[in-house]
Amino acid sequence: MYELGVVYRNITRAEREIADALAVLGSATVHEAMGRVGLMKPYMRPIYPGTQISGTAVTVLLQPGDNWMMHVAAEQIQPGDVVVAAVTAECTDGYFGDLLATSFQARGARALIIDAGVRDVKPLQTMDFPVWSKCVSSKGTIKATLGSVNIPVVCAGMWVTPGDVIVADDDGVVCVPKAMAAAALDAARAREANEEAKRQKLASGVLGLDMYNMRPALEQAGLKYID
Amino acid sequence: MYELGVVYRNITRAEREIADALAVLGSATVHEAMGRVGLMKPYMRPIYPGTQISGTAVTVLLQPGDNWMMHVAAEQIQPGDVVVAAVTAECTDGYFGDLLATSFQARGARALIIDAGVRDVKPLQTMDFPVWSKCVSSKGTIKATLGSVNIPVVCAGMWVTPGDVIVADDDGVVCVPKAMAAAALDAARAREANEEAKRQKLASGVLGLDMYNMRPALEQAGLKYID
Amino acid sequence: MYELGVVYRNITRAEREIADALAVLGSATVHEAMGRVGLMKPYMRPIYPGTQISGTAVTVLLQPGDNWMMHVAAEQIQPGDVVVAAVTAECTDGYFGDLLATSFQARGARALIIDAGVRDVKPLQTMDFPVWSKCVSSKGTIKATLGSVNIPVVCAGMWVTPGDVIVADDDGVVCVPKAMAAAALDAARAREANEEAKRQKLASGVLGLDMYNMRPALEQAGLKYID
Amino acid sequence: MYELGVVYRNITRAEREIADALAVLGSATVHEAMGRVGLMKPYMRPIYPGTQISGTAVTVLLQPGDNWMMHVAAEQIQPGDVVVAAVTAECTDGYFGDLLATSFQARGARALIIDAGVRDVKPLQTMDFPVWSKCVSSKGTIKATLGSVNIPVVCAGMWVTPGDVIVADDDGVVCVPKAMAAAALDAARAREANEEAKRQKLASGVLGLDMYNMRPALEQAGLKYID
Amino acid sequence: MYELGVVYRNITRAEREIADALAVLGSATVHEAMGRVGLMKPYMRPIYPGTQISGTAVTVLLQPGDNWMMHVAAEQIQPGDVVVAAVTAECTDGYFGDLLATSFQARGARALIIDAGVRDVKPLQTMDFPVWSKCVSSKGTIKATLGSVNIPVVCAGMWVTPGDVIVADDDGVVCVPKAMAAAALDAARAREANEEAKRQKLASGVLGLDMYNMRPALEQAGLKYID
Amino acid sequence: MYELGVVYRNITRAEREIADALAVLGSATVHEAMGRVGLMKPYMRPIYPGTQISGTAVTVLLQPGDNWMMHVAAEQIQPGDVVVAAVTAECTDGYFGDLLATSFQARGARALIIDAGVRDVKPLQTMDFPVWSKCVSSKGTIKATLGSVNIPVVCAGMWVTPGDVIVADDDGVVCVPKAMAAAALDAARAREANEEAKRQKLASGVLGLDMYNMRPALEQAGLKYID
Repeated sequence: MYELGVVYRNITRAEREIADALAVLGSATVHEAMGRVGLMKPYMRPIYPGTQISGTAVTVLLQPGDNWMMHVAAEQIQPGDVVVAAVTAECTDGYFGDLLATSFQARGARALIIDAGVRDVKPLQTMDFPVWSKCVSSKGTIKATLGSVNIPVVCAGMWVTPGDVIVADDDGVVCVPKAMAAAALDAARAREANEEAKRQKLASGVLGLDMYNMRPALEQAGLKYID
Repeated sequence: MYELGVVYRNITRAEREIADALAVLGSATVHEAMGRVGLMKPYMRPIYPGTQISGTAVTVLLQPGDNWMMHVAAEQIQPGDVVVAAVTAECTDGYFGDLLATSFQARGARALIIDAGVRDVKPLQTMDFPVWSKCVSSKGTIKATLGSVNIPVVCAGMWVTPGDVIVADDDGVVCVPKAMAAAALDAARAREANEEAKRQKLASGVLGLDMYNMRPALEQAGLKYID
Repeated sequence: MYELGVVYRNITRAEREIADALAVLGSATVHEAMGRVGLMKPYMRPIYPGTQISGTAVTVLLQPGDNWMMHVAAEQIQPGDVVVAAVTAECTDGYFGDLLATSFQARGARALIIDAGVRDVKPLQTMDFPVWSKCVSSKGTIKATLGSVNIPVVCAGMWVTPGDVIVADDDGVVCVPKAMAAAALDAARAREANEEAKRQKLASGVLGLDMYNMRPALEQAGLKYID
Repeated sequence: MYELGVVYRNITRAEREIADALAVLGSATVHEAMGRVGLMKPYMRPIYPGTQISGTAVTVLLQPGDNWMMHVAAEQIQPGDVVVAAVTAECTDGYFGDLLATSFQARGARALIIDAGVRDVKPLQTMDFPVWSKCVSSKGTIKATLGSVNIPVVCAGMWVTPGDVIVADDDGVVCVPKAMAAAALDAARAREANEEAKRQKLASGVLGLDMYNMRPALEQAGLKYID
Repeated sequence: MYELGVVYRNITRAEREIADALAVLGSATVHEAMGRVGLMKPYMRPIYPGTQISGTAVTVLLQPGDNWMMHVAAEQIQPGDVVVAAVTAECTDGYFGDLLATSFQARGARALIIDAGVRDVKPLQTMDFPVWSKCVSSKGTIKATLGSVNIPVVCAGMWVTPGDVIVADDDGVVCVPKAMAAAALDAARAREANEEAKRQKLASGVLGLDMYNMRPALEQAGLKYID
Repeated sequence: MYELGVVYRNITRAEREIADALAVLGSATVHEAMGRVGLMKPYMRPIYPGTQISGTAVTVLLQPGDNWMMHVAAEQIQPGDVVVAAVTAECTDGYFGDLLATSFQARGARALIIDAGVRDVKPLQTMDFPVWSKCVSSKGTIKATLGSVNIPVVCAGMWVTPGDVIVADDDGVVCVPKAMAAAALDAARAREANEEAKRQKLASGVLGLDMYNMRPALEQAGLKYID
């Protein structure tokens, strides 16, 4: 449940070096490295393809059809942050466009993750400010009701605490709790280091059945081959 | 993000008397009393109409297509609990039927809230075990992968901590954090006490426009009447 | 496109006798009688089954998450009206509950048709005030932004002009423009008069293939029977 | 892929006694007994609750917005059949109402399963003709384009061959291939015989953890209990 | 409700110069300039990104799975028109492909807005004929049932009268009634003129909180900052 | 209904030359040539635009959240195949990424068609391995439960038998049964040969109304032109 009408100014962010290092690993590898948890719902899609980022979460809780708190959130942004926006009810309005993006970018934000709609897709791509959202909509919003900034929020089915690390790419969005960020980075790197050798083997025609030694387990489970 | 493979046995439940007293007030009044927050998504519907309950949350995190942890959760149920089940990915399978309901009911559970599917709708109604779910499905599940019991979970868009109070009726499901339960009960009762007088006035033909003195604000906002 | 911030007080309603007579014919027959047009989208469902109504439309345009104009609309209701509510953006909030229903009913309204959510399902059924809606949700609304009353609106994909006739039952909701109401009533009655004889024939085992003389057309279209 | 414009008159139905005996076991038990396969998508819902049926499939392939082939199908119905209707494209129109139901019932049909919409919900309930459908809609259909009768069809994600057994209840719809019907009946009965003893144990407070001896496997999988 | 089987040949179009001038302002700015109304539902998406158009509406009402009236509409197109297509029921079929686009383009149409599906996405992009649609589908249509051309229609939740101005880009589709087109153009230009100065301020690091002087209102609403 | 735990090694593929020749014709033309049947649901979309392929189907039936059988399927791939993957229940997990794609590509597969999610969108585009899927998701899968390989499956509403021809492009996915592949190719080529002449006529301004001689039929259906 949410605390309304508050802005937490002093949040503890995950270590910058770790937060930055997770981008290159991508959402799928990081999520696997954490034990297959931490992903937002797959309806969260980039508004344009090809971007891959990570950063520390500044969270904002919005009211339906009301983007007032986005301006309050802007002041709390530090370089390297990613703004994560949730809404108290389902809403598809366009809460965010190129003016707010200009402000966020000037403060050092790297991206917006929003469980609602955005607009100005073309200008946002031109200015290289990526957004992952539920939808795109021209629908404007009002500024009438308080939400909160930097409280824990549920965004697209995932719990995000201010300062957590967000990793987002064309495959989706994952949240790494700051307490687990270092371990997740290590595990993700280990996982990736492992992949190149596998890729070469598979490219040469070796089957996963053999590379992972799956045949005995499949046989034991009762798999039958029929000619 | 979720901790996997753990069962917390000693959770702090909201005070029983308060948890029980919230049922009669209903999800809409309780949610309003908390400042219009705490509701699960409206896709959560009762599998049969007419039930209204409250209780303390025992949480369970499930894997897609796998209901193993439901059996683990059963052991943690105490009389007056409501089981709240989340899944690590979107799933519509039928995780729960009359056998599990028999076990839950024997342990004292009052209801199940599940962000997935259930089955045995008719037997569940006959045995008076209400369920709020995303869908109904005959699809069975396996028992192969660990989740967790009594960790905080996101269920249908809402954050639920073990021991929180769940209030559910035909209008939906609301979660009241245990720390706020007493205040929410007071506020909800105050709100309801207020309603009967209003209802009688409105029934007599008095308009909300006058009862709530809305006309000046509407006029100031620029509302024009055209004959 | 919508005119905002206005209330039309003097609308022309379809003739009362005609508006009332359409209820018993039902949404399917009336829609067929008009040439298979006039239906709202099938996501519009009754919040409880078994009700069948007709009446003259009082329309209201709402803002997302804001039910202020519902109170303004209440004053414009006359006995025999059905309130038809549209929203300027997609919204699932619960705009309407038992208090507003008490007021609407006191003014003589027969039902609410709303392209959004409602709450207090059980009390509404108890007081016999039927609602057709997109969803059910406990989520409350604010009172901050103007919409309009008695302007033409699009509700669930259908254009509704104030004073049109609304016919709603378990099958859906149809809007009959007031200028066509008399003709629609005649055509619907003719259609229905025709049905009882057909029903008896079909019940006796006569096939639609023969009763409607479909065999020649099917043969000409190339239908082949294979033994 | 579908053969269009054909009606197969001589289909092989599953044995009557077996087809009839499956009803009482219900969709969940039958689907489990077959190895957790055979279910239609969970969006298939009964238009009124409380019915449980089984019967042999007469299939019909419809065109979008066109119910011509329903009349052709009526002639192929034999007592104990269940009509299974698929459409060549996604459609929500109301293909079926009380007149067609009267005809189907006169021919001996027990139910309709349709991957589209139906109407006349209240009359259908009154005449006790159950339908499982994707939606309810008053929208009428035309009679202009050929489909087929008694060809294999995909209905709500499941492959149905004419003569297969359909089992449907409040939990969903399952298709049992006629070649497997006898074995499915035996397996389902064995499964059910087993359930009553389990139900009594669970009702007495025995946990599934112990009754199914799950504790060793959970421990081996690494489950940790934290006090 | 719709009049069927008619083609209005003489429609009054919004003034060409105004209709053309709205394109560059885009759907979000134009919709804001009209008071945040006029938008179609956000499920209307361009079939390829990067196009921004405006033009005068020629409307067409289609039947489900039937594109006959598209050919009738082609004859009514004048240079600078945008075809707006609605369907009498929900349908995802592919009503439009490169042949019809060739015809529309030859007549001077700039785009198609359709509340259904289209196909030939790649050829349409190659020939630079933009489409905003509900979906993409290869499914073909028949030519059997009359609809209408140049009657008012509801397209994706918005009322469109023949001759209105349509503005569409990557953010969505907005309809400007012809009577309001001149005023909307002025308001949209004023709005845009205003934006460049704001953008520069925000880019320099000035906060919206200060630029819009939001702090007093936020404080009055009760916003609390917590260190 | 599905046979579980089996792998058919010797399937009969459609003739290679025919299977390959269908790609250039595209899904819309091929589907029309077959009588407007054979299409998968329109929710099946390419994960990146601009690819057009055909090939022979190797089918795989997966369990929810479990991609074990993908590795089993890899061994059955021959050059020119397209893997078609169905799931026994609705699932959005990411079953497939760049490692499996490397293996599939090494075996000669041209594409994957999957009624679930995939990940590694960017790497898949870089390596030119196209996928048509229900969604994109980073969510990983386990390897615990058997499905089958090379049994007939229902994928996105269409029945696919191993060895059938799959044609996929930006408009969707169509399945051509191997027995009909030669006839479908001929019909599709005839259809296309016909189109170029039509395209030139339409481009010159000739109307479809005249080119297809539609005016008499429209008049007979009662179309009225109003000036």
